[in-house]
Parts: sequence; C-alpha cells; structure tokens
Amino acid sequence: MAETLQFIQFGLGPIGLQTVGYLLERSNVELEAAIDIDAVKVGQDVGVLLGCSDPLGVKVSDRAEEVLASTAADVVVLATLSSFAALEEQIMLCLQYGKNVISSCEELSFPWAADPQRAARIDAAARAAGVTVLGSGVNPGFAMDALPLLLSSACRRVDAIHIGRHQDAALRRLPFQQKIGAGLSLDTFAQQVENKRIRHVGFRESVGMIAHALGWQLERVTEEVKPAVAETDLASPFLQVKKGAAAGVLQTATGYLGDQPVITLELQAYLGHPRPRDFVSISGEPPLYSEVVGGFHGDIATCAMIANTVPLVRRAPAGLKTMLDVGLPSWFQGWRG
Amino acid sequence: MAETLQFIQFGLGPIGLQTVGYLLERSNVELEAAIDIDAVKVGQDVGVLLGCSDPLGVKVSDRAEEVLASTAADVVVLATLSSFAALEEQIMLCLQYGKNVISSCEELSFPWAADPQRAARIDAAARAAGVTVLGSGVNPGFAMDALPLLLSSACRRVDAIHIGRHQDAALRRLPFQQKIGAGLSLDTFAQQVENKRIRHVGFRESVGMIAHALGWQLERVTEEVKPAVAETDLASPFLQVKKGAAAGVLQTATGYLGDQPVITLELQAYLGHPRPRDFVSISGEPPLYSEVVGGFHGDIATCAMIANTVPLVRRAPAGLKTMLDVGLPSWFQGWRG
Repeated sequence: MAETLQFIQFGLGPIGLQTVGYLLERSNVELEAAIDIDAVKVGQDVGVLLGCSDPLGVKVSDRAEEVLASTAADVVVLATLSSFAALEEQIMLCLQYGKNVISSCEELSFPWAADPQRAARIDAAARAAGVTVLGSGVNPGFAMDALPLLLSSACRRVDAIHIGRHQDAALRRLPFQQKIGAGLSLDTFAQQVENKRIRHVGFRESVGMIAHALGWQLERVTEEVKPAVAETDLASPFLQVKKGAAAGVLQTATGYLGDQPVITLELQAYLGHPRPRDFVSISGEPPLYSEVVGGFHGDIATCAMIANTVPLVRRAPAGLKTMLDVGLPSWFQGWRG
Repeated sequence: MAETLQFIQFGLGPIGLQTVGYLLERSNVELEAAIDIDAVKVGQDVGVLLGCSDPLGVKVSDRAEEVLASTAADVVVLATLSSFAALEEQIMLCLQYGKNVISSCEELSFPWAADPQRAARIDAAARAAGVTVLGSGVNPGFAMDALPLLLSSACRRVDAIHIGRHQDAALRRLPFQQKIGAGLSLDTFAQQVENKRIRHVGFRESVGMIAHALGWQLERVTEEVKPAVAETDLASPFLQVKKGAAAGVLQTATGYLGDQPVITLELQAYLGHPRPRDFVSISGEPPLYSEVVGGFHGDIATCAMIANTVPLVRRAPAGLKTMLDVGLPSWFQGWRG
C-alpha cells in the first residue's frame, strides 16, 4: 500500500506556490502545512492562493516554529530567500524539528563555493538531526552542472567543458525581462551591473560543482556581465527596446586550470535571440556536443526540478548534499513509499 | 592525503581490458589483481595485454576465489559474461569476499525486468555483505534510461517519451557491423533475428527502469527487430552490402500505458545512416527535445561509463542498485578518498 508523501511549504512567493501546485498534481502527495510571513497571505487557504475552485484545507501560517513543531511531514520545501546567509536560520529551525530541507536558494546548490564555514555548520547540524539538506533548481543545480557532468561520464577524457544557455527573453514574463535589463540605456545597465542588480546568481556554484566532480583544482574563476546591445528597435508584449539600448544580458564565468580556460559558462538572455537553446560542448575523447533545442523552459523547469527532487531528499543520506549525491531525479507520476 | 582506489578486474575481454586502461589513466587508481579464464592470458602481465611498453606488475590469474580471498581492494569490475543467469555465481563469489561489484552485464542494469527472483537473491546477499552491486554501461544504463530520466526532471508533466539511438555503422569495428547483420541477405537476417543473434540486449531493462522511475504500470511491452534494407550498394572498410540486402538493424521497443504507447525506444544502426545522433523527445509540459549530435561513441562510451562509475559503487548504500540510486557519475581526473 502506498504511503503518502506529506510536505511543508515554507515560502509562498511565485516559485514556492508554483512548486506546491506541481507537487499536488502527483498522486499520493499532500501538503500538510504552509508558512509565509506575507500578511496578505497569512490565514488564507493555499488552494485559494493557487487559484483552485475548492479550498485545500491548509491555511498559511506565519508561525514557522509552531508549524514545524506540530507537523508530522518530514520534508520542508524552502522557497523564501535567495541569500544563503539569511537562509541559514530557517534551515537550522527546520533541522531542529527533524525535517529534511530542499530549497531553491541558488547558493545552497554548492555552498562550499560561497561560504564553506556556513556549509560546514549546516552539514554538521543535518547529520546530527539525521536528515538531508539540498539546494535544487534548474540553474544552478541542473542545466549548467548536474546534466553536463552526467554527459561527461560517456567520455574517456575531458579537457574542457563549455556550457551555454541561450534564451529569447521575448518569450518570458516581464519580471524576467526586467531582471536582465531589457530596455535600459547602456549607462543604466552598467550601473545596475555595478549594483549587482543585473546578474544571474549561480555561476560560482556551478563552476564549483563541476570542478569538484571532475577533480580540477582551479587557479581562478572570472566572471563578466555585459549588455546585449539591440541592433534594431525591439519590442516584447511588455516593453520596448530602442536600437543601441540593452536588449538583455551576456554573462560568462570562466574557470582556469593553470593558464587554460577549462570551464566556460555562458548565459545569453535577450529579446530576439535567434537560436535559443541549452548546450553542453565537451572537448576531450571523444568530443561531445549536446543540445536541448529551444532550451529548458525557465519558469517551469525551476519549479519542476524542485518538485521532482523532493522524493530523493527524503531518502538521501544525512548531511548537506548536492544534486550529485542524492540519486538521479526524474519526473514522477506519484509517490510510492 | 589522497587514498588510492584499488580495484580487481574480473574478465579481460575487449570491454574489460579497455576499461582497465581508462581507469589506469586516472591519478590514484591502481589495479590490484586481474582474473580471466582464457589460457592465452593467464600468467601474462596486464600491462603487456594493454600494449604498454612496461609491465604493470599484475599478472592474470584464473583462480578467482584465491584472488578475491587474498586482495584488499574492495571493488571488482566484472566484465565476463553477458548472461545474467551465468553471472550470478561470479557476483556471489565477489560478495562472499566483501567486494563491491560493478558489471557491464546488460541485464544487471535493471534486473527486476528479466529475473526478479535472481535480483532479490543478489540484493539480499549484497545487503548481508554490506556492499553494492551495480550494472553500468552506455546502453542500457545511460543513453536510453538514466539520461532521459534526468532530462524529464525539468518537466512538470510527462505524457510520453521517445528515445532514439541512430548510428552510422560504417564508422564502427567489424564485430559491430557483423552484430547488426550488415551484408546479410534478408532471409539470413530473418533467421538470425529468430535465433536472437541479431538483437540489442537492454531494451527490456531500459523500459523497465524508465517505467519504474516515472511510476508507470505498463500494460505490455512489445519489441520488433527488422533489417535496414540497403537502397544502393554500400561498402565499409570491412565488408560489402549489395542493394536489397541488410545494411544493419532497426529495433524498437514500445511500452504501453493502457492503449497508449508511452515509452518508445528506437535503435537504428546501419551502414550509411545519414544523421547519426542520440536523442530524447519528451511529450509533456513543456515538451523537450535533446540531441547529442553524432551520438555517443559506442566503443568508448561503454568503457568510460563503467570506469567513471567505479567511485560511486564504492560509496553507495549496500544492495543491488541501479544507475538511479548511486549518485550522479561524471568523468574524474583522479581518485580523492
């Protein structure tokens, strides 16, 4: 008889809410409780927030500790903050109540890159509690690290690896178009790069995960963020871009082994990209080129990856783990104990 | 300080020997002992068999039990037999001496498909010994199961999955061209299909692994093997194919959920294939099409996949496991404890 997978949702912003929706589409999966500090959401039924016709019978609470202390579910989907530092307290609270944690926080996908001390603290607490903590998502966590690494296992030798995500931002939502600086003058774009308001977070983590898995001791890692300059006037359903302004972003990270660039990550996201795709190009024996035509769907894939990885977190060994450690995720129709 | 990964090679045919070569290219990896029953190889140095200028200091023995009893290495690379039934005795012998086992045997990749009783026996013995048994390889084990499953984790919903390996056999060795029936008359081809001499082994295992991971209870699985008929005279460096004869093989397996074909595996391997590639096409939300241009390199990828998975087998939980359970493999430069 199939057991039911019960989970607690901690954070009901767009990513959190969509992940809940994706999980509840599976058989034998149930939301036991929901936590958010947004006063507009507290007290509301999660079914209503999801736009369902019927309430789900689970109301949002802002009392995290009370919820964690009084629930049986052993896994928390944590989608509250992007900052790893700010997230530590919430993770520790979950661990205190013996919950496994899966989070969309980018830095948690390979936290030894950004903050090894914090990573060591969380790892120790997770081991002591006998549960797993994992950062997951499409990028970092999959498209530019886990997937290219799995592909590399078909190679006898890897000399260098080049990973690209090329996206046509015209197909995305307004917040994404704003995040990549579409429509900004080049001066404003440069200021926002300076303020780190335009920047994909996760390159450091992906480079760190790849280097760790391949066994490369990198000399240094460089990052660059530039505008993709519109060559003609462009328009999306949401905004206009004048010729000469920023149509989006070109971001690269490069990891060096000695003088050689051996890991290159390249994000191109702008209105009107002529050939959106996700690709992995490995130099080695044999060389290998793999492409997802059109690319992974940014909005769907982030939430799908977290939803699809929830079962792995529950059965993984205790500690702070990465997508390399917990087994191979896949879509699943339902939970089967 | 890095520990050394020591392994025992059991079986020194083409696959076994090539895998040894790939493993010894990595730092901190050492062959401790080698076993084969071939009288021509017994007593010979493995370095000599590998064509190295210097001997390796490891001589081939045909006394399996003596070798297993007297070595410290805790992992055996088993590349002896393709038959799962015949392999059981060798696996059990390795388990008796507390060795982890990784094997290229196709049926071992998902043995619950072919022989659940045998799988249960091996699983029980591996758990009792506190070690791991794993079937690995490019196909089954990767190209048509593990990789497509990982790709599916970017989807909110999977309705059907179509996986293809399209190969230009003209680029492969003579034994491969013979295995796919290139050059045979259609009558002889049909006879050899009947005798199961022309047949890729592993579709049942790949379909089983996919259905298990996605949670699909398949109604039935059908398999079909047909010749790819030469439309003109063809030639490889090794053989001639007359127009109207078999240029190679077209093999499919289809898994049905109710009346719907939901898993389709398709192998096309013939001389002169116009577009060799490995692809995964998922119908669902969103749909996804991924392609390895030119395809995985058949000869290299089989041995690379086994070599690259050896470290995972040593640290996986005890029992009979699949490529879904042991963590994510990748190429690695060397062993690091």
